[in-house]
Amino acid sequence: MAMVSLDDLNRMDREAFATALGDVFEHSPWVAETAFAARPFSTLNALHEAMTGAVQTAAADRQMALIALHPDLAGKAAREGAITPNSRHEQSSAGLDRLSDDEFAAFHRLNAAYHAKFGMPFIVCVRRHGKDSILRQFEQRLHNDEPTERRAALTEICRIAALRLDARVAAPDRLNVCGRLSTHVLDTQRGAPAAGVAIALFEVASSGTSRLILQATTNADGRTERPLIAEQPIPIAQYELRFAVGAYFARQKTPVAEPPFLDVVPIRFAVAEPESHYHVPLLVTPWSYSTYRGS
Amino acid sequence: MAMVSLDDLNRMDREAFATALGDVFEHSPWVAETAFAARPFSTLNALHEAMTGAVQTAAADRQMALIALHPDLAGKAAREGAITPNSRHEQSSAGLDRLSDDEFAAFHRLNAAYHAKFGMPFIVCVRRHGKDSILRQFEQRLHNDEPTERRAALTEICRIAALRLDARVAAPDRLNVCGRLSTHVLDTQRGAPAAGVAIALFEVASSGTSRLILQATTNADGRTERPLIAEQPIPIAQYELRFAVGAYFARQKTPVAEPPFLDVVPIRFAVAEPESHYHVPLLVTPWSYSTYRGS
Amino acid sequence: MAMVSLDDLNRMDREAFATALGDVFEHSPWVAETAFAARPFSTLNALHEAMTGAVQTAAADRQMALIALHPDLAGKAAREGAITPNSRHEQSSAGLDRLSDDEFAAFHRLNAAYHAKFGMPFIVCVRRHGKDSILRQFEQRLHNDEPTERRAALTEICRIAALRLDARVAAPDRLNVCGRLSTHVLDTQRGAPAAGVAIALFEVASSGTSRLILQATTNADGRTERPLIAEQPIPIAQYELRFAVGAYFARQKTPVAEPPFLDVVPIRFAVAEPESHYHVPLLVTPWSYSTYRGS
Amino acid sequence: MAMVSLDDLNRMDREAFATALGDVFEHSPWVAETAFAARPFSTLNALHEAMTGAVQTAAADRQMALIALHPDLAGKAAREGAITPNSRHEQSSAGLDRLSDDEFAAFHRLNAAYHAKFGMPFIVCVRRHGKDSILRQFEQRLHNDEPTERRAALTEICRIAALRLDARVAAPDRLNVCGRLSTHVLDTQRGAPAAGVAIALFEVASSGTSRLILQATTNADGRTERPLIAEQPIPIAQYELRFAVGAYFARQKTPVAEPPFLDVVPIRFAVAEPESHYHVPLLVTPWSYSTYRGS
Repeated sequence: MAMVSLDDLNRMDREAFATALGDVFEHSPWVAETAFAARPFSTLNALHEAMTGAVQTAAADRQMALIALHPDLAGKAAREGAITPNSRHEQSSAGLDRLSDDEFAAFHRLNAAYHAKFGMPFIVCVRRHGKDSILRQFEQRLHNDEPTERRAALTEICRIAALRLDARVAAPDRLNVCGRLSTHVLDTQRGAPAAGVAIALFEVASSGTSRLILQATTNADGRTERPLIAEQPIPIAQYELRFAVGAYFARQKTPVAEPPFLDVVPIRFAVAEPESHYHVPLLVTPWSYSTYRGS
Repeated sequence: MAMVSLDDLNRMDREAFATALGDVFEHSPWVAETAFAARPFSTLNALHEAMTGAVQTAAADRQMALIALHPDLAGKAAREGAITPNSRHEQSSAGLDRLSDDEFAAFHRLNAAYHAKFGMPFIVCVRRHGKDSILRQFEQRLHNDEPTERRAALTEICRIAALRLDARVAAPDRLNVCGRLSTHVLDTQRGAPAAGVAIALFEVASSGTSRLILQATTNADGRTERPLIAEQPIPIAQYELRFAVGAYFARQKTPVAEPPFLDVVPIRFAVAEPESHYHVPLLVTPWSYSTYRGS
Repeated sequence: MAMVSLDDLNRMDREAFATALGDVFEHSPWVAETAFAARPFSTLNALHEAMTGAVQTAAADRQMALIALHPDLAGKAAREGAITPNSRHEQSSAGLDRLSDDEFAAFHRLNAAYHAKFGMPFIVCVRRHGKDSILRQFEQRLHNDEPTERRAALTEICRIAALRLDARVAAPDRLNVCGRLSTHVLDTQRGAPAAGVAIALFEVASSGTSRLILQATTNADGRTERPLIAEQPIPIAQYELRFAVGAYFARQKTPVAEPPFLDVVPIRFAVAEPESHYHVPLLVTPWSYSTYRGS
Repeated sequence: MAMVSLDDLNRMDREAFATALGDVFEHSPWVAETAFAARPFSTLNALHEAMTGAVQTAAADRQMALIALHPDLAGKAAREGAITPNSRHEQSSAGLDRLSDDEFAAFHRLNAAYHAKFGMPFIVCVRRHGKDSILRQFEQRLHNDEPTERRAALTEICRIAALRLDARVAAPDRLNVCGRLSTHVLDTQRGAPAAGVAIALFEVASSGTSRLILQATTNADGRTERPLIAEQPIPIAQYELRFAVGAYFARQKTPVAEPPFLDVVPIRFAVAEPESHYHVPLLVTPWSYSTYRGS
């Protein structure tokens, strides 16, 4: 869907406004219609607050209706393609469209239990989570009481809306919905950036399986041209960076053992705050290395 | 087989001596018989030198006969149990008795190529190598010329004999056939050893599969009660140590993220010198770690 | 004074026993006489407990008399040599016999204030402290009330006695009165101990002046032949280790900048627990280093 | 002196041009006059090359005259104020206007020896050096032969001119005459930048004395608002950064020892390339730290 500018939105009449932003909240153009009264919006954050305010101050039955309009995660509707394009894209980003049979069964069981206990679908902003984290959330939230879960559902709905809004509206400001994952490699033997180091980033599931997210190579500054992850939340998950330092030192003609003490260095870490900056560098010699969460 | 003391060996007649040490060199008691002349031996090293001297100064056809008496690695005889207990134990230590079909085929092909080129079995002291390293040696040595390979075979035979001798004879000294792999974990957030950290040591094959070698837990000094590997050569191979630091910091009531930035820290390294000491420690906080080859 | 064995002490009569241990508590042989009743002592710790028990259970006036028999720190008696050899040796170990005029004036002022407030001399086990730390203790303890200070004085007297006893009596066990300061240097560029690195240890006063304690050179293991400090408490103080790594890397023919990025690496740290082990290593390349309190 | 733009220079006649740039080369407006022929200059680098080209291709006697017009370092003329403002400013930047008697005597001796051997003044671009480095250069270059020293003098004169030119002329480009020294402090116990850490930068002379260059405090990113040194060459010298981490951790309410193991952390390093970027960070917990030359 094409982007719309904040200025254009401010100039629209109510109907056009509701059309432009009607799907920011799933099947619920009334949210945009309510927010319309607060025009003009000088910032995207102001628009987002107006919309989430409309949701938070709505009557309880309207809130419940909003919640009920969301599809199950990895549910029957999702499988059959009977969900909105937004939802399909979001569920796919977390890998919910490529579940193993066991995982599908787990979601099925959890959806049923959640519906039975709370009479509503389980809602989470899936773009902020890896598959393991969604399942962990699901298990934990099943233990909550009903008011807590209703609040949690609305919070997650507003997060989903923020991501949709940030992607949809061109404005002078941005919503705080993006994180950044970056790295750099420093050759502490030469006191200089390590250029040409091949890097691979994997998501590591609790089952032990790894999914390649991307590959990159360090430039003359020992950094990758682009951040490893940017312009999106970093899904809450466990990751592994693998640095091919053996090949790097071989190219440097550095005398090393055969086979070299260090070849591919794995660094395994988890992201807990999807909107934060995680800088995970490698300081390395052929015989030692350090890493840390930097900034 | 029971150990024999150097003193007892020094008091034996030639026949008893050859019986006691006849299998140190595969099917070749003549080596012990020749070394017998150099009695008495004040050290195990002196005995080893006398035996390897007998091999190195033997006539070429005798050397070739000695070489020819060795079984193929992962060969037909090994499969059928038709090799000496020493050889069986040694081949098993390197995992040659549990090869995949592909690996078995690779050994078969290499054995055939080696026999065709050199007219003798390929000999390597398998206890000094992991499976990958044996295959790499095999591939590399196929490119050598015949005199180089004959020398290589005798060198490896003497290494095999050293390991057998060191295990067999009680003496005031030891042969230099053992390495040592150790670790310790330091909690640099508290400036103290990290106690109770679960550690697992894996051998990592080039195919990516990992084989668990052992599990241990750090004691109050942040060390394992016993070295991870000792009293044997450390096979030339790639290893991975995995440290369960997430569980450790959780027990310390250290405030960490959820999920914690570091949970299981993998350190992957290779051993190139089987008779050396590799100390691979972990210095760790919930947000950073370092490792190095220490001593 | 010659050492005496625990066995010999156990065989002595009361008079000989009191003579042998009469000066363990300053001018107060009655402590040894009281402890005599608890013979025989199977360990040095048992003897120490018997003597400190005699002090702790003595009548208040006897305790006050014991306290009063101690000389002032850096006081008139100490200056004129009118104190016991034990006290002289102890005060000298902390540098109280080589004070600047300002420091002497500070001690004079504090002694006067302490006498005026508490009617007794200020007592501290000086061998556990550097000069700065003694002055800090002095300032802090002036703020206490009288019962607290009386307890503190007895505690310090028992620490002084423990050090005297441990040095005097040969026994199967030792009292826990000694700490240890050690270091090692690892060249993480070569993955090996750094041999031949010149090391100097200084005590750094809060005034900024440094006093050289000792110099040493690392051996083939990257360690010093003896611990930097051992067989005594490590005085509570700030220290600086200086490692001549520039000269080391120059000898290694390691290519470095001119002048080298790292030449003499200073590591400044404080000791707070005199009876503990402080291991303060240096992991170093020509362009980076790490240190930590190890064990 | 006010800056002049490259455009303005390109529009000037020869006389105005020579007036504007006449003192870029000491007392030698002929260099600017010669370069005038190469107008217009699209970049400052082109102008610099034209001027240095004029010097390098001048006749030998003209080059010697240019060299001879430079004042002695810390010489009689400098002391009496009888040198150009440029030279005075430059000599002062290296501290040559505040020499001890011993240092003054050393310069006097070296100036005399250099004049005696080469018949010209010793020239070095002092803004690229600390005092120790100038003296070291002086001693070393006295061993050269005459052609080498003549080339060295011209090279240094062109470096002096580059610095003057870069400060004088506003242009789309800059000459490569500036370095940068920066730091940051990372609290690896919390995995976050350390804010509010007081930092002091000293130049450390070989005599052991330290001269405070600046003080700064880390901001929320753990960095200083401005680089420690920028917009100038970093003088070749030894430096010490001191980080007040003890006070920082005390503010964090981090439990530490008393006195804390780490209080003020000194990092001593040398700069060898004045036009490079030196990033010297500190990764620190209360019990450990690392530093390295980063980028």
